[in-house]
Amino acid sequence: MFCFAQECIDEWILTRRRAKSSCLVGCPFRQVVSRRLEAKARPGEPIRLRFRCGIDLSLRQLRIFWTNDGSHPIWNGPSTTQHLDAQPLPPVWDTLTWGYRQDWQAILPAQADATILRYVAVGVDSCGRTLPCPWPGRDRHGSPHVATVTVDRLDPPTWLRQAVIYQVFVDRFAPSPGSVFASADDLDARLGGTLWGLIERLDHLVHLGVDTLWLSPIFASPNYHGYAVRDFYQVEPALGGDEAWQQLVDACRQRGLRIVLDFVANHLSDRHPAFVAALDPDDLVHRRWFRFRRWPDQFDCFFAQPHQPELDGEQPHVRDYLNAAAVYWLRLGCDGYRLDHAHGLSHGFWSEFRAATRSAAPHSVCFGEVTHTPQTLRSYAGRMDGLLDFPLCMLLRDTFARAEISLSHFDRRLCRHLDYLHGPMVMPSFLDNHDMNRFLITAGGDVRRLKVAALVQFLLPGPPIIYYGTEIGLSQRRPLGRLEESRLPMPPREQWDHDLRDFYRLLIRLRRRVAAHEQRPLLLWVDDDARCAAWQVGAVVLVVNLGASPCQTLDASRLLLATDPTTGPHLPAWSAAVLQA
Amino acid sequence: MFCFAQECIDEWILTRRRAKSSCLVGCPFRQVVSRRLEAKARPGEPIRLRFRCGIDLSLRQLRIFWTNDGSHPIWNGPSTTQHLDAQPLPPVWDTLTWGYRQDWQAILPAQADATILRYVAVGVDSCGRTLPCPWPGRDRHGSPHVATVTVDRLDPPTWLRQAVIYQVFVDRFAPSPGSVFASADDLDARLGGTLWGLIERLDHLVHLGVDTLWLSPIFASPNYHGYAVRDFYQVEPALGGDEAWQQLVDACRQRGLRIVLDFVANHLSDRHPAFVAALDPDDLVHRRWFRFRRWPDQFDCFFAQPHQPELDGEQPHVRDYLNAAAVYWLRLGCDGYRLDHAHGLSHGFWSEFRAATRSAAPHSVCFGEVTHTPQTLRSYAGRMDGLLDFPLCMLLRDTFARAEISLSHFDRRLCRHLDYLHGPMVMPSFLDNHDMNRFLITAGGDVRRLKVAALVQFLLPGPPIIYYGTEIGLSQRRPLGRLEESRLPMPPREQWDHDLRDFYRLLIRLRRRVAAHEQRPLLLWVDDDARCAAWQVGAVVLVVNLGASPCQTLDASRLLLATDPTTGPHLPAWSAAVLQA
Repeated sequence: MFCFAQECIDEWILTRRRAKSSCLVGCPFRQVVSRRLEAKARPGEPIRLRFRCGIDLSLRQLRIFWTNDGSHPIWNGPSTTQHLDAQPLPPVWDTLTWGYRQDWQAILPAQADATILRYVAVGVDSCGRTLPCPWPGRDRHGSPHVATVTVDRLDPPTWLRQAVIYQVFVDRFAPSPGSVFASADDLDARLGGTLWGLIERLDHLVHLGVDTLWLSPIFASPNYHGYAVRDFYQVEPALGGDEAWQQLVDACRQRGLRIVLDFVANHLSDRHPAFVAALDPDDLVHRRWFRFRRWPDQFDCFFAQPHQPELDGEQPHVRDYLNAAAVYWLRLGCDGYRLDHAHGLSHGFWSEFRAATRSAAPHSVCFGEVTHTPQTLRSYAGRMDGLLDFPLCMLLRDTFARAEISLSHFDRRLCRHLDYLHGPMVMPSFLDNHDMNRFLITAGGDVRRLKVAALVQFLLPGPPIIYYGTEIGLSQRRPLGRLEESRLPMPPREQWDHDLRDFYRLLIRLRRRVAAHEQRPLLLWVDDDARCAAWQVGAVVLVVNLGASPCQTLDASRLLLATDPTTGPHLPAWSAAVLQA
Repeated sequence: MFCFAQECIDEWILTRRRAKSSCLVGCPFRQVVSRRLEAKARPGEPIRLRFRCGIDLSLRQLRIFWTNDGSHPIWNGPSTTQHLDAQPLPPVWDTLTWGYRQDWQAILPAQADATILRYVAVGVDSCGRTLPCPWPGRDRHGSPHVATVTVDRLDPPTWLRQAVIYQVFVDRFAPSPGSVFASADDLDARLGGTLWGLIERLDHLVHLGVDTLWLSPIFASPNYHGYAVRDFYQVEPALGGDEAWQQLVDACRQRGLRIVLDFVANHLSDRHPAFVAALDPDDLVHRRWFRFRRWPDQFDCFFAQPHQPELDGEQPHVRDYLNAAAVYWLRLGCDGYRLDHAHGLSHGFWSEFRAATRSAAPHSVCFGEVTHTPQTLRSYAGRMDGLLDFPLCMLLRDTFARAEISLSHFDRRLCRHLDYLHGPMVMPSFLDNHDMNRFLITAGGDVRRLKVAALVQFLLPGPPIIYYGTEIGLSQRRPLGRLEESRLPMPPREQWDHDLRDFYRLLIRLRRRVAAHEQRPLLLWVDDDARCAAWQVGAVVLVVNLGASPCQTLDASRLLLATDPTTGPHLPAWSAAVLQA
């Protein structure tokens, strides 16, 4: 009897239709990552591949050509590449496509630790044709798509599980000592935040209690935000340059702070030398770094912005370049990466990226930004240490900022979500970030809601992220229309909500005391009419009241932390409290 | 490691939402029968139940109360009913509902042969409430829905697998000897076909080669079609009454013909004594046979027709009544049943129906009319011997009547369909029936297309059904607008297409020679541009040309049967041929 896809490493859909996504143009393989419980390929365990043959394609044979020596698999000529025929499975009815699907399965032999396995799949259709073969790969040179699986025993480092992370948008966080921010009238311009300014604020962050900084991109870039890199080997001079970086590393080490850098691998600035070279008629090597539809003026680019040409992450040269850059900064004191728009590159790309970075820095971490279904998110297990927890962010905002769902609905989604994703991965949690409305404006400016949401966030297992300013009540001038509205400069101290900041400080202490990263909330009771609920979290009880009137008699002697200072024997409306169990 | 639903006997969705279907009103269980590969409960094997808890319902406990002694399970009081707690499975992301689903599983102990197991499921929600409990069952008396599983070793009788079936619409097939049909101006009136007339035609049917008759409903009924029964224990006098029935049975036995009767269990005629009694204010027993929304004027009825009140098949009295009627006619010479609108009654109903009929007549058969997805169709395996193959009918008409899909698409859907459904069940095939446009009018009157389609139909494993008249070229006056257009009276012999009838006769011989019921077509080649293909079927090769010009050099010396008499070294346009392999 066959067990459904529980051990699949890769699962693909084979279809004649072209995928819409630009990074898959011309490739009849659309990677589908559904129904994978564990994407990790472990040494000594067979590697199961699944191919879902859609209603529009018949195959009579599907052959896998694979290598485990680092070489590219060769499928259409004499070579030492090994091969194996996939086996068809019984057909299944597929409601989504309203037709019968035929799945194929191949089980590659177990591999040794630290193996990088590469494979291509080549089919023969019902007419006996190798079809559509050669499947035009991303490089448009007749090669089928090469998939990569890394085989290792790497688990997420413990420090990431225990971390409390502070997200610094460098240009907007702190100007250099003695300077001030430029006027916030033009939010598309640099406002003057630097690494020097950040260094000056480190003691405040330590006092708050965070132990990890995630910095917005700091590599040389023409943009204030840095999300299009011109030079991966230089810190942007406007942010303080390489000298400030080294000072920051030293200062953080002294204080026990770790640094996670934002790494943008999907695209470059069009001023990056590789793209400039790609426009040279004689430079065919660099031309292949990008996906030109018609050289030199038509190419894939991020958000349809020609100044952000997308890299072809399937090219070995590109992988080598990006991996080397990532390793370079790990050696210069960086502790890991937040991977921008990770879904823009293939799973195989990240498998190799992680193998390279962990080999150079065994305690380094990487977690991705992937905004997709939970099914897709789970497919990154084993490729990365974790992912930013977008589904949880949505759930916390739906429940506590907009109050749109009941607490029993919240509990149901929360528990299933934690079980589904927080086993194989570390999922950093957040209430807001630089690409969305801040929580506070979404909550209509109601700080009570922010405090309740933060209390819940800090008692969940994923390492919490504080987006700069959220802890002191920074909001927006108006709701988004432009991303920049959520990136206002950090206000001067006299404009801070110091009560809120103190609350955050207590939150972090509470989180560590409870060891929340090891806990799962267990619902004790819920009353959807009164909009109250209570959960056990380790040795404490969390009580939430989203109703309009006070609820629940509390044993005030057991009170550890409350969002509302008037909390006594009753929990006030729109507040939460934590009690010793 | 858990294996995905391959052995489930029952699979349910638990949801707060009310099902739309009238037969499930008030019951938060919507029976879902998807992803069951084998619904048969075999003696000595554990019985696996699956409960899919949707995104709108949280459960902290799910308890199964079950009996195997024929009694009703009691869940809310002292009893000898056994119980067992279902276990939660890991959550899964469900794209269709866009949320996390929580599945529960219960494994009941293995049972002895011929056991009828009944169970109810009772949940406790996240607030600790038994919710919504008691789940209002179909009887509106506070009982949860009782599910039925029969445990047996019953396989479909061999004779059904080998059968060639002729569908007789009795009122339209043959008038009594010496009579003629009434004018076809009013197709809603009886036109005068009788069992006496049928008896007179038996020798013609034997000469054609069929071995099984499926008769439209013959029990006493106010309607010409008989699909609303007034008396299950009497043959409609207008069709010849009980005397003609007994004569028909004798005549068929002498000729080796089997008789399958159309059995309508979903609803009755409003003139049936049970419904008349249900309108009596004092008769509470019969009132419960039906689902009154507001007695006496609002009740569930078939196709919203008040003269066709629907039965409540969950009521033990109703089951006993219908099972007894079915057994009665089996004892009087009927060989089995075609089950009208089988999806209108529960799987548990049919489990008991089959247990009762097979117990009384071990070689009797039953196959259902279920127009639903292949997933749902497969769920009837083990409840019935088979189902009318509606998906195949659609495929044959799409390919050969309307020529809307390519031959490679046809082959792909066909092979997957056969693998998916023809293993556990016998699936009688048909090109048309009394509820759809006849094949010939759909094919624009092109007899070539009908012959090609019939040739393919008769070389497939499912027992073929010939709808009366299709074999002599009976078509329609106009496309449906009303079902009756496909129910014209059988024309006199001088209007028959005798060539077509001879072709059908050869078809049946060919089918028996090839033992097509044991074969699976294997595609040899296909050319979608020329619209030609060839399949191996056992010891013969089927070649099809749907193109506009002749194709393929044939070895004419091996020709066994061709749809076009001019077939020689070339296969003419729009024709098919069978050759010795």
